[in-house]
Amino acid sequence: MDQRTDFLTLSTRDLDAARRFYRDGLGWTPLLDVPGEIVFFQVGFGSVLGFFDAAKFADDLGTGEQPVSGVTLAHNVDSADAVRAVAARAAAAGALVLKEPQEAAFGGFHAHVADPNGVVWEIAYNPGWSVDADGTVRLSTVD
Amino acid sequence: MDQRTDFLTLSTRDLDAARRFYRDGLGWTPLLDVPGEIVFFQVGFGSVLGFFDAAKFADDLGTGEQPVSGVTLAHNVDSADAVRAVAARAAAAGALVLKEPQEAAFGGFHAHVADPNGVVWEIAYNPGWSVDADGTVRLSTVD
Repeated sequence: MDQRTDFLTLSTRDLDAARRFYRDGLGWTPLLDVPGEIVFFQVGFGSVLGFFDAAKFADDLGTGEQPVSGVTLAHNVDSADAVRAVAARAAAAGALVLKEPQEAAFGGFHAHVADPNGVVWEIAYNPGWSVDADGTVRLSTVD
Repeated sequence: MDQRTDFLTLSTRDLDAARRFYRDGLGWTPLLDVPGEIVFFQVGFGSVLGFFDAAKFADDLGTGEQPVSGVTLAHNVDSADAVRAVAARAAAAGALVLKEPQEAAFGGFHAHVADPNGVVWEIAYNPGWSVDADGTVRLSTVD
């Protein structure tokens, strides 16, 4: 597991309020906006912040309450095999596997593991995500 | 407030366990390690992840429980005046000011504001922080 965070995702009770605040209030440009589900903003070189509807966040994670709640960090890799390998490496280092490597609702493949303090990492192969040489993130849904 | 996240900070109940997991378990290199307080890792181009002792995190934030708990996003600027201006801009866009702009324990100047879902942003002038042209983060404590 490389020393890298790609996405920061936050569970939000009011997604419309988040969109209004960041897009309309602060003038930010969404990278990808899926009404009723999630809105993404690029927030750094290759770095993305996502606001995810709280009910769908809970469904996606599929676990009960965590000590650090409503937050995941995403670590993206380039294949389903890499998801399995990284999740196994994290587990060997002491992570708790919350969701075994499996097909993901977004069209890729992922696993969820928790660090010793309960911080949740999503290890993901996302065929709709890439980063250009200049750090620009490309993100799309997979149909 | 530019479309950018610089630090992600997580409240951790067991800082030693976090250090052991990331540094020893996963082989990550700390950017700055302050025993008993906080350990930082660079996790992207100009991007830093910090694990902050839970009691000190609560002291630093100085507020009660938030809907999204144990998490802050840092937005760094280059002067105390810029902290005041950005905090005012966020408040004008609908943020709740949790901590008015003030001298910070780390030697700089900061404010805390919450977005409509309670996500906490620290607006900070940190004289010990800079980012090189190649994205390398420089971070030191200010004596």
